[in-house]
Amino acid sequence: MASEKTGPQVFPVIMAGGSGTRFWPLSRAARPKQFLPLATSRPLIVETLARLKGLAPPKNCSVVCGAVHAPIVRKTLPALPKQNVLVEPQARNTAPAIALATLHVARKNPRGIVVVIPSDQHVADVPAFQAAVTEAIAVAEQGRIVTLGVHPSRPETGYGYIQVGAPISGTACEVKRFAEKPDRATAEQYLVSGEYLWNAGLFVFRADVMLEAFATFMPELSKALDAIRPALGTKKEAAVVRREFPKMPATSIDYGVAEKASNMAVVPCRCGWSDVGSFNALPEVRPLDDAGNVTSGPTFVIDSSGCVVIADAKPVAVVGMKDVVVVDAGDAMLVLPKDKSQDVRKVVEALKAKKLTGYL
Amino acid sequence: MASEKTGPQVFPVIMAGGSGTRFWPLSRAARPKQFLPLATSRPLIVETLARLKGLAPPKNCSVVCGAVHAPIVRKTLPALPKQNVLVEPQARNTAPAIALATLHVARKNPRGIVVVIPSDQHVADVPAFQAAVTEAIAVAEQGRIVTLGVHPSRPETGYGYIQVGAPISGTACEVKRFAEKPDRATAEQYLVSGEYLWNAGLFVFRADVMLEAFATFMPELSKALDAIRPALGTKKEAAVVRREFPKMPATSIDYGVAEKASNMAVVPCRCGWSDVGSFNALPEVRPLDDAGNVTSGPTFVIDSSGCVVIADAKPVAVVGMKDVVVVDAGDAMLVLPKDKSQDVRKVVEALKAKKLTGYL
Repeated sequence: MASEKTGPQVFPVIMAGGSGTRFWPLSRAARPKQFLPLATSRPLIVETLARLKGLAPPKNCSVVCGAVHAPIVRKTLPALPKQNVLVEPQARNTAPAIALATLHVARKNPRGIVVVIPSDQHVADVPAFQAAVTEAIAVAEQGRIVTLGVHPSRPETGYGYIQVGAPISGTACEVKRFAEKPDRATAEQYLVSGEYLWNAGLFVFRADVMLEAFATFMPELSKALDAIRPALGTKKEAAVVRREFPKMPATSIDYGVAEKASNMAVVPCRCGWSDVGSFNALPEVRPLDDAGNVTSGPTFVIDSSGCVVIADAKPVAVVGMKDVVVVDAGDAMLVLPKDKSQDVRKVVEALKAKKLTGYL
Repeated sequence: MASEKTGPQVFPVIMAGGSGTRFWPLSRAARPKQFLPLATSRPLIVETLARLKGLAPPKNCSVVCGAVHAPIVRKTLPALPKQNVLVEPQARNTAPAIALATLHVARKNPRGIVVVIPSDQHVADVPAFQAAVTEAIAVAEQGRIVTLGVHPSRPETGYGYIQVGAPISGTACEVKRFAEKPDRATAEQYLVSGEYLWNAGLFVFRADVMLEAFATFMPELSKALDAIRPALGTKKEAAVVRREFPKMPATSIDYGVAEKASNMAVVPCRCGWSDVGSFNALPEVRPLDDAGNVTSGPTFVIDSSGCVVIADAKPVAVVGMKDVVVVDAGDAMLVLPKDKSQDVRKVVEALKAKKLTGYL
């Protein structure tokens, strides 16, 4: 068991740089998905921090986000020390964000264990999740970069996959390879093979191990880290980060490190995970009524099944509909078929074209 | 040609006693259908009064409505003299309302021509409508009770029908019979026969002729009128009407008089008439976009066809939908299939059951 006193020091890093539009009109540029109570009555990012309880104290947790979201992060997570909100001067994919957070951890404890966790996912079975992270921490202590692999439940074409290799210890295994988002046929093959897990963006590693990996596989990024390191904790920190961060390549940690490193490991995880990718995913993570509808707020859902109906303050009535999404965000509303949830981007594009930025 | 100077005096009576729920959430108890701008940018009742321009001056027009709606009638129709708003003490179907209005007309001119016109219909071709009314007025002058019959455009099962009899003069004919709302097969038979017209609730008659008909066919009602007559124009009028009106049988003019009288006539009318009976009827009366959608307000209708999308102040986005009704009334919203528009009553029932009277 990893615990703060007897085991290694654990430093969760919550990745909150996302700015998706897939939950418009609920999500907006100023209030992206991770700040919405999509799976429970609390915002996803609040559940994410709560999910780490027992693994690490809040003072060890940090959040990486864009400057525009730092105030809402601080407001939404009051237990988090203010200095633990790390601001990316610009969105440059996951490698630079993880690098910056890892640098901060290394300053506190070079052998500290970093747990990278996206802020906008849902986990139904928290004990199973914590057990997997605990096992990953133990493997990471040995110098491995560990990724959590989610047992796939469908031939999903929207995620990357991890092919599992030889056993290491416990349930942890070598990584045979990281596979890009597959086509449908390949995804079905992955599913029946039993050899593939979903890459959920969850990474566990020692700070010093990852900094070494950056030095090996991402020298440009590493050079920027070297420039930032002496400024950490000084008055110059913000200015130096602003100057150096844009020099880092805008690359994912998967492509920049995980697909290249030889010390990767994977811990399989069956924990009711969902990336809550669109309105279509809400029935996975929320309670359903007898007709399979997800409802929230003052709704009247009559003769309808398989719908997602989200009301704000005022009543929303849905009669005789099947598999549709109806959302009232208070200042804008949306209706579309549930299985075309991704087409919400067409509305966002139309709003942009009409320069209705107040609704973006 | 009937004109105010050279022809008979014409007294339009606009029937505004309706309190339907078929346009919820736009329509409410305090603001029923006739006060909504459903067909044009103006409320149906405003269009109804405008449709009479040239047939009669506003001072000859009256509106019959419930007490609760008298203020909104006065506000919506400022050109109408205030005393021309006749209040029904209670809703008792069309015969008592027409009787009360006819009594008022008879006091001004016993041979005055009453034109009864529902307040909540739409007419696309106003000149054709006026030509038919003008012809009906001429026939009514001869002592007939004339109904306007609308050429049917589909085998509608929601209306009563008029079977046309022998020609009288011009296009006016005897009425062979009034037929109740038919079943589908009968409606189809009516349509192909060419002998049947829709009963649209439009009646034209001399005041004295109708009062005589009431005396013959509705003696109880006639007795109440006799009690009201001496009080008209006096301080006691309101009290006497309140006392006598409930004594009148709550019967339709069709059942009470039209189906029984032998001096009925019908003038066929092809005037782009619609009763605007539900959201499903809006595509009949409103302009359509290229994909056959009706839209109003700030809407974003994308990859969708055959929809009715009504926004209030805030944007309503509809993506990938077919033949649905989406209505935002500002304080409540509704989504349902267009061809199940009548099921809106189920929402109204649910609101009643939950005692959410503020939304009724």
